[in-house]
Order: sequence, then structure tokens, then C-alpha cells
Amino acid sequence: MKGDRLTQQIQFIIEIDKLKQIIRQSYLMDATRRENSAEHSWHLAMLAMLLAEHANEPVDLFRVLKMVVIHDIVEIDAGDVDYFDKTAAQSKPQREQMAADRLFGMLPTDQAQELRELWEEFETKQSAEARFATALDRLIPLLHNYHTQGQSWHERRITGDRVLLLCDDIAPGSVALSELARTLINDAMGRGYLAPPPDTGQTG
Amino acid sequence: MKGDRLTQQIQFIIEIDKLKQIIRQSYLMDATRRENSAEHSWHLAMLAMLLAEHANEPVDLFRVLKMVVIHDIVEIDAGDVDYFDKTAAQSKPQREQMAADRLFGMLPTDQAQELRELWEEFETKQSAEARFATALDRLIPLLHNYHTQGQSWHERRITGDRVLLLCDDIAPGSVALSELARTLINDAMGRGYLAPPPDTGQTG
Repeated sequence: MKGDRLTQQIQFIIEIDKLKQIIRQSYLMDATRRENSAEHSWHLAMLAMLLAEHANEPVDLFRVLKMVVIHDIVEIDAGDVDYFDKTAAQSKPQREQMAADRLFGMLPTDQAQELRELWEEFETKQSAEARFATALDRLIPLLHNYHTQGQSWHERRITGDRVLLLCDDIAPGSVALSELARTLINDAMGRGYLAPPPDTGQTG
Repeated sequence: MKGDRLTQQIQFIIEIDKLKQIIRQSYLMDATRRENSAEHSWHLAMLAMLLAEHANEPVDLFRVLKMVVIHDIVEIDAGDVDYFDKTAAQSKPQREQMAADRLFGMLPTDQAQELRELWEEFETKQSAEARFATALDRLIPLLHNYHTQGQSWHERRITGDRVLLLCDDIAPGSVALSELARTLINDAMGRGYLAPPPDTGQTG
């Protein structure tokens, strides 16, 4: 019985290697290539360890770490959805639920349930831990874009007004990090890394 | 003062993006490319979450998670050393100590100390957590090699007798996982994924 349990765990561990092939919009800080969701998840775990003190509420860092490590696994089936692509976002919840069924369902029942609950908590932002994890997940692409002079912003023709909306996703988890984000975004517009809002040219 | 602290933390977060460029010997499970140390660190965090029940002693999983997430950061300066390259291994400790000085030294003092201690604990295998983390770190390349029909073993002309020694690194953390490793290695030799010991042909 224990052997079967270990076999299920190892099969899941092999399956999730595919997260290393899911390519995100963000470029590495040296702009040589886009990053993948596995290395992004590692980076988020580091952010959680280092920035927990900036959360609005005290957070259980152990829970945050588990949450960020598993938060993108559903992308193996559902793909990574561009935050600014509102069409793709419409079908995202359904695709991700199916992905969660299949992927977490590979595990022994107790572990399947634990990971599913962590992922649902992250998605629905029910807890201080989930709100803080979301803040980190929204902050890190700003750092990637800022340090590559807005490479993925330019490619997608994203304007500053849309990026500034990200601050509203960061603030519920960390007002301090949303202030950092706002400063970075305004500085990026000043430096031309990010296009100004569409009407600025006419009205200014 | 708090601003300075956050600045240091963000500079470190940007610096460690380089771990995504440190290439390991192991190929992804689909053999399309070698993996990097950032995505490997994420994978280890998943192994820790799923396999903690197989540790010889009860482990503090929170501590294991933090340890595996940071365990390879020194490679940014010191590079990844092939487990089977005994020449490169000789200068590894000194290079890694210098790397730890520079990299962790970028952080606020308390965080620099916390990460340094975690990393030293991992390196010296002082605790049940470090021994279990080491077991996972030794197990995962076996899974990669097994599922790519021994691609990186063949490239380096590694023989089964040398790979079997890995079981001695896994057992102090998890006898159950060392048994799994031994089964995989023997099966890999049977399937030709891994060359037999050099003398087998003559004496058999």
C-alpha cells in the first residue's frame, strides 16, 4: 500500500516537470529569453521568504511558501494566460478547474485535497496568505519589465494606465509593495519603458 | 530606513534571477533541453512537500522548504558542479563560501544570517531537515536520467557502480527513497540506460 502511494507521488513529480515548458510573458532580467512558470514559482518562493515583513497582516509564511510553489501547476494543462488578455481570461477558470481535477487527482487522496485547497485559497484570495501571495505574483512581472526596459510591455503595446491597475491587486496583500509598484511604473513611463495612457498626447 | 531595507531585498531578488541561467547536467523529462538550477529548486520544493512522510526522522517541512529554495543560490557565482566530477569538486567549497559571502551579503543583516545558516546547515547535513533535503537533491537526477533513458549518464560515460553510490547519500535522509533509487538504478542498468560496472563484461 505504501509502495502504491510512493508510486503515485513519483508519477506526479514526473508529470509536473512539464511546468518547466510553460512560457510566460516576462523576460529574464537580462532579456535573453522569456521565463517559464517553474522558475517563476521558485522566484516567488524567494520573494515570500524575503518580503513577508511587508505584508499588511501577519502571514503564515509556511503556508505562503506552499501556495506559491503549487500556484501555477494547473498551467501544465491550462496554459499561462496573459494578465492583459481579457478574452483568454474568460475561459481560464473552467480550464484551470479541469486541470486541477486531472493533475492533483494523480496524487494520494489526502495530498490531492491539500494541494487543491491551497490552490483554491490562492485563486479566491480568501486569506491574508493568499492576498500576500497574489501581491508577489503581480509585483514580480513589474521587476522583470522594468529591468528589461519594458520589453514585454512594448511587444504587447500595453500602456501605463493598464499597468497601474496592477497596484490594486497588490495593495490588499501589501500596501508597501503596491507603493513600490506605483513608483516603478511611474518611473518606467518617465523613462519610456512603458507607453503613457493613449489620450495623454492629445490632452497634455 | 525601511526603504533602504526594501531596496536591498529587491536588489537581491533581481540578482538571483541569474540562477535561471545556471545549467545542470540533468535533462528535462522530455529530453528537449537541460534544466536550470532555479527550476530544479522549485521541483525540489515540490518533492519536499510530497515526500516528507518518507523521511527517516520527523522533519520540519517549513525548514526543509526554505532550505531547498535557497540551496543552489551560491551557484550564481560558483557554478553548478557535476556530482561525478571529482576535480571540480575540490575547489567547490571555497568558491561557494565566497559566493555565499557576496550574495547573502547583499541582504539586510538578519536575513543574510538566516539564509547563510540555512545554507550551511544544508551543506554540512547537520540536521534531519538537511539530510532529507540532500536525499531529495540526490534522488531527482535519477528520475531525470531514468526518464530520458540515461541521456546525461551516457554523455558522461558514467557506470552503474558510481551511480549506486548515490544511494549512500540518500539513505541518511530516507531509507525508503534510497531503496527506490536502488531499484531505479538496477532497472536502468537492465534496460541499458546505464552502463554496467567496467569489469562486469570480463568477470560475468
